[in-house]
Amino acid sequence: MSDFRNLLETFENQFPQRQYQIEIVCSEFTSVCPKTGQPDFGTLTITYAPAQKCVELKSLKFYMQSFRNEGIFFEHITNVILEDLVSALEPRQMKIAAAFNSRGGMAETVTVEHTDEQ
Amino acid sequence: MSDFRNLLETFENQFPQRQYQIEIVCSEFTSVCPKTGQPDFGTLTITYAPAQKCVELKSLKFYMQSFRNEGIFFEHITNVILEDLVSALEPRQMKIAAAFNSRGGMAETVTVEHTDEQ
Amino acid sequence: MSDFRNLLETFENQFPQRQYQIEIVCSEFTSVCPKTGQPDFGTLTITYAPAQKCVELKSLKFYMQSFRNEGIFFEHITNVILEDLVSALEPRQMKIAAAFNSRGGMAETVTVEHTDEQ
Amino acid sequence: MSDFRNLLETFENQFPQRQYQIEIVCSEFTSVCPKTGQPDFGTLTITYAPAQKCVELKSLKFYMQSFRNEGIFFEHITNVILEDLVSALEPRQMKIAAAFNSRGGMAETVTVEHTDEQ
Amino acid sequence: MSDFRNLLETFENQFPQRQYQIEIVCSEFTSVCPKTGQPDFGTLTITYAPAQKCVELKSLKFYMQSFRNEGIFFEHITNVILEDLVSALEPRQMKIAAAFNSRGGMAETVTVEHTDEQ
Amino acid sequence: MSDFRNLLETFENQFPQRQYQIEIVCSEFTSVCPKTGQPDFGTLTITYAPAQKCVELKSLKFYMQSFRNEGIFFEHITNVILEDLVSALEPRQMKIAAAFNSRGGMAETVTVEHTDEQ
Amino acid sequence: MSDFRNLLETFENQFPQRQYQIEIVCSEFTSVCPKTGQPDFGTLTITYAPAQKCVELKSLKFYMQSFRNEGIFFEHITNVILEDLVSALEPRQMKIAAAFNSRGGMAETVTVEHTDEQ
Amino acid sequence: MSDFRNLLETFENQFPQRQYQIEIVCSEFTSVCPKTGQPDFGTLTITYAPAQKCVELKSLKFYMQSFRNEGIFFEHITNVILEDLVSALEPRQMKIAAAFNSRGGMAETVTVEHTDEQ
Amino acid sequence: MSDFRNLLETFENQFPQRQYQIEIVCSEFTSVCPKTGQPDFGTLTITYAPAQKCVELKSLKFYMQSFRNEGIFFEHITNVILEDLVSALEPRQMKIAAAFNSRGGMAETVTVEHTDEQ
Amino acid sequence: MSDFRNLLETFENQFPQRQYQIEIVCSEFTSVCPKTGQPDFGTLTITYAPAQKCVELKSLKFYMQSFRNEGIFFEHITNVILEDLVSALEPRQMKIAAAFNSRGGMAETVTVEHTDEQ
Repeated sequence: MSDFRNLLETFENQFPQRQYQIEIVCSEFTSVCPKTGQPDFGTLTITYAPAQKCVELKSLKFYMQSFRNEGIFFEHITNVILEDLVSALEPRQMKIAAAFNSRGGMAETVTVEHTDEQ
Repeated sequence: MSDFRNLLETFENQFPQRQYQIEIVCSEFTSVCPKTGQPDFGTLTITYAPAQKCVELKSLKFYMQSFRNEGIFFEHITNVILEDLVSALEPRQMKIAAAFNSRGGMAETVTVEHTDEQ
Repeated sequence: MSDFRNLLETFENQFPQRQYQIEIVCSEFTSVCPKTGQPDFGTLTITYAPAQKCVELKSLKFYMQSFRNEGIFFEHITNVILEDLVSALEPRQMKIAAAFNSRGGMAETVTVEHTDEQ
Repeated sequence: MSDFRNLLETFENQFPQRQYQIEIVCSEFTSVCPKTGQPDFGTLTITYAPAQKCVELKSLKFYMQSFRNEGIFFEHITNVILEDLVSALEPRQMKIAAAFNSRGGMAETVTVEHTDEQ
Repeated sequence: MSDFRNLLETFENQFPQRQYQIEIVCSEFTSVCPKTGQPDFGTLTITYAPAQKCVELKSLKFYMQSFRNEGIFFEHITNVILEDLVSALEPRQMKIAAAFNSRGGMAETVTVEHTDEQ
Repeated sequence: MSDFRNLLETFENQFPQRQYQIEIVCSEFTSVCPKTGQPDFGTLTITYAPAQKCVELKSLKFYMQSFRNEGIFFEHITNVILEDLVSALEPRQMKIAAAFNSRGGMAETVTVEHTDEQ
Repeated sequence: MSDFRNLLETFENQFPQRQYQIEIVCSEFTSVCPKTGQPDFGTLTITYAPAQKCVELKSLKFYMQSFRNEGIFFEHITNVILEDLVSALEPRQMKIAAAFNSRGGMAETVTVEHTDEQ
Repeated sequence: MSDFRNLLETFENQFPQRQYQIEIVCSEFTSVCPKTGQPDFGTLTITYAPAQKCVELKSLKFYMQSFRNEGIFFEHITNVILEDLVSALEPRQMKIAAAFNSRGGMAETVTVEHTDEQ
Repeated sequence: MSDFRNLLETFENQFPQRQYQIEIVCSEFTSVCPKTGQPDFGTLTITYAPAQKCVELKSLKFYMQSFRNEGIFFEHITNVILEDLVSALEPRQMKIAAAFNSRGGMAETVTVEHTDEQ
Repeated sequence: MSDFRNLLETFENQFPQRQYQIEIVCSEFTSVCPKTGQPDFGTLTITYAPAQKCVELKSLKFYMQSFRNEGIFFEHITNVILEDLVSALEPRQMKIAAAFNSRGGMAETVTVEHTDEQ
């Protein structure tokens, strides 16, 4: 889990008895490569089935922005964000797909999933 | 359920013995954010398997327009519209996917589903 | 079933022992709204697994054109065309998806299916 | 000119000696048809060469939102907005293209232009 | 000029002193081929600079629909519609581009233009 | 000029006094490479301003098909078809753009133009 | 099976123990309609899981070209090509989807499948 | 001009006698809004005709990255970057089009141009 | 396995207990046809679920480049690269889809898969 | 001019009296960066008006391939290829646009032109 997880705010899900899905696409994610110090850019797609809590969108935006000057690998960012969000929302199910922009003719997408029974 | 549900009119399904599907895309939905008072825009896709009743399209349009100056959250609108339509149509199955336009680099889609056995 | 079903001609399927699929997209369908008298436009996609008979394409075109000045609802057209084609072809399986052009910001697609065991 | 023109705020152009161009696409414009009372939706593209003043984007958003419940024809909206913006910004040149969503299979775009020498 | 030109209604242009442009895309045009009796489909794009009169959109729709069962060649339809609209609107300038759907692997677009000085 | 030019039929242009444009896209052109004997495929776009004569579309289709088994270079086909059509139609202006499908990672488009004063 | 099946050459699959898939898209297929004598155009997509043999691509191209002047129906071509390829390659599984270009506003795709146990 | 202009490195144009054009698209530009402190994202397209010097691409990347945590308005960034590049390269001609991502349903593109005679 | 497999470097997966997926698209692959000596071009998409090791992206790029002047068939390249990567990463699951550019109107995609239980 | 210019073969233009245009898109160009030794990829579009000679396509392909293992800068490649082709073809006019793939979020296109009077 990251130091930024306290930035995440939630509000009460008014339809907790119904299994439904919320998808949020954050198309302006940027962090810094820990090896080269160069910025990386990508798009994160968060899909989750809320239990008691929904994530407040503005707080999610600020949370995402806090990675702006952090040096961290693609594969780790995606796992860390999943852990932060699962810890804050305790969702029935959650999936994050992080598509990072092409570097040297190669583009990478990391997809991580959490379910209750995990 | 909303105050507008009485606007919904139905007509008789002439092929009630056959399970078939009707999809309606409403690309001009707008409501007002309850926090900021700013308008939100989105596209609602309603998919349902009719039982005895089909929704009359013009009445659906007027029903959708009645949210134009209402202050209500994304997640709640989608659930409320599902409840109104299920109550009016008593369909075999119904799904609503509400894709709201991007705000601050983040776009949200809420997907809610109803089935008979729910 | 419609009065036009006699327009449909068939030819013998030379590979009746093999289950295969034929998809026909009719992108120039037009009929008349029974309420307003205004023309409607849409695209019909017919998918079927032939048994002993295939539909002859030119006769299908003439059959489709015969709805040009008929007043009939979306939901009914799709079911009626399915019944006509099933009666003429006796296929193993058939599906019709009728996508009608947007009216007042709302577009509708009706999807109807037939199988042997129905 | 409209009653809403006082909503428009400007800031000083720091490069007045250079002829350059600013294009703003407002993809969420909505007003009401004066004939039918039904909402209309469209996208307005404003292109201008600033002289001493640039339009402040947030004030432009509020100005655009003020037409939300006004009954006014397409052709007139476009001309009225041009007049309001020309009066507020006194630009070297300005063009507005207003693309209104399709109604009954017909879509309309109105394009109005202003130049200094007009 | 066609027999249908009386269907065209106009309203007064409130900004006659300004040269501006109106573009109308009619994506649901259909007529009948005079040779084969088969329906043709196409999209007509009308662009004009209004003088004293604008065309009323609903009347234009009815005018367009009146060609539905008329047998007339592509090249002639486009010229006839230009003549009808020029006679009704007396515009500063008008252009019609009629794109007819592909037949036998060949698609045709006819473009006709009218200016004051013609 | 080719041996096939007699296949081209014309009809009288009923609006000879007006300069207008006809564009025909033939997306199913095929001929044979004179070097390798292998088939080539491409799309021909003919644009012309008719004088006294328009080309009859069905005859144009048959004319195009007659190159199906002819061995002829890209650059020459385009020039030859221009000459045949100019000789048959005596147009005010004509342009042919022939886009041939990619071979070995290379695609070629040949564009030839004719005007009265040439 | 067709007279052209001897044109198909194969090479040995060096990884016969692994189930993998080869997809070949032939975007330049043309044959002749047996009814009208007019050329038809389409795209064939062949997908197969090789057993002991792979098809040599150049020989497949020549095999496809041999239908260029043959008069044969869409539905039959697809089945015949499947039979030829299955006989030559003895694959674990094979599927052919043949999408033929639109004629008179109607486009047809025929999909045929072969498996070992068939 | 900005404090970052010393980051720009150049190399000698080996074809100074020929007027040619270099276009560079920087799709990962980000800076900070001076009003709200929130990050902005955009794409800058630089087009120039080199005289004696070309910009070295890696140094341009570092120069662009230096705006990452700077608070500066859209309109000003574009003019400042033009001034830095013109001062470093002394090009025959240069144009910068900066397209900033949508905020609140409004997207802005600023286009600035420099020529020798300016 | 190829001689280049030693170029592949790995780093430790910090989330080995979670099943997640990494997709890498290499859009600039080129090798040489062993028959004709001509270069081939394609795009490789590698998808894998890491166990203890992730592939280091820069080393993967160098590994891919080492095929630049090698003469090897499409079908074999894909299998060989799978074997090299499986041997280096020992992943839970891996799939490679290699889409090679069109030659003579024919494009080929080879898809190979590895799972633990294989 | 490069050492490879002798690879270019020409054939006689049979329509030298007519000004027409030939466009060739080479979508599989690759060379090596002289600084890093890494491969670069791009698409070259050559447009020319032939005088007495046309370039033979196969020889152009071999000429393009000869840069495969050469270390040369983007800006120089484009100018060098223009010089080689102008020297071989002596065209009326020629333009080359070389679009190189993105590196580090930046893509570059170099456009060079030659005319007779140059």
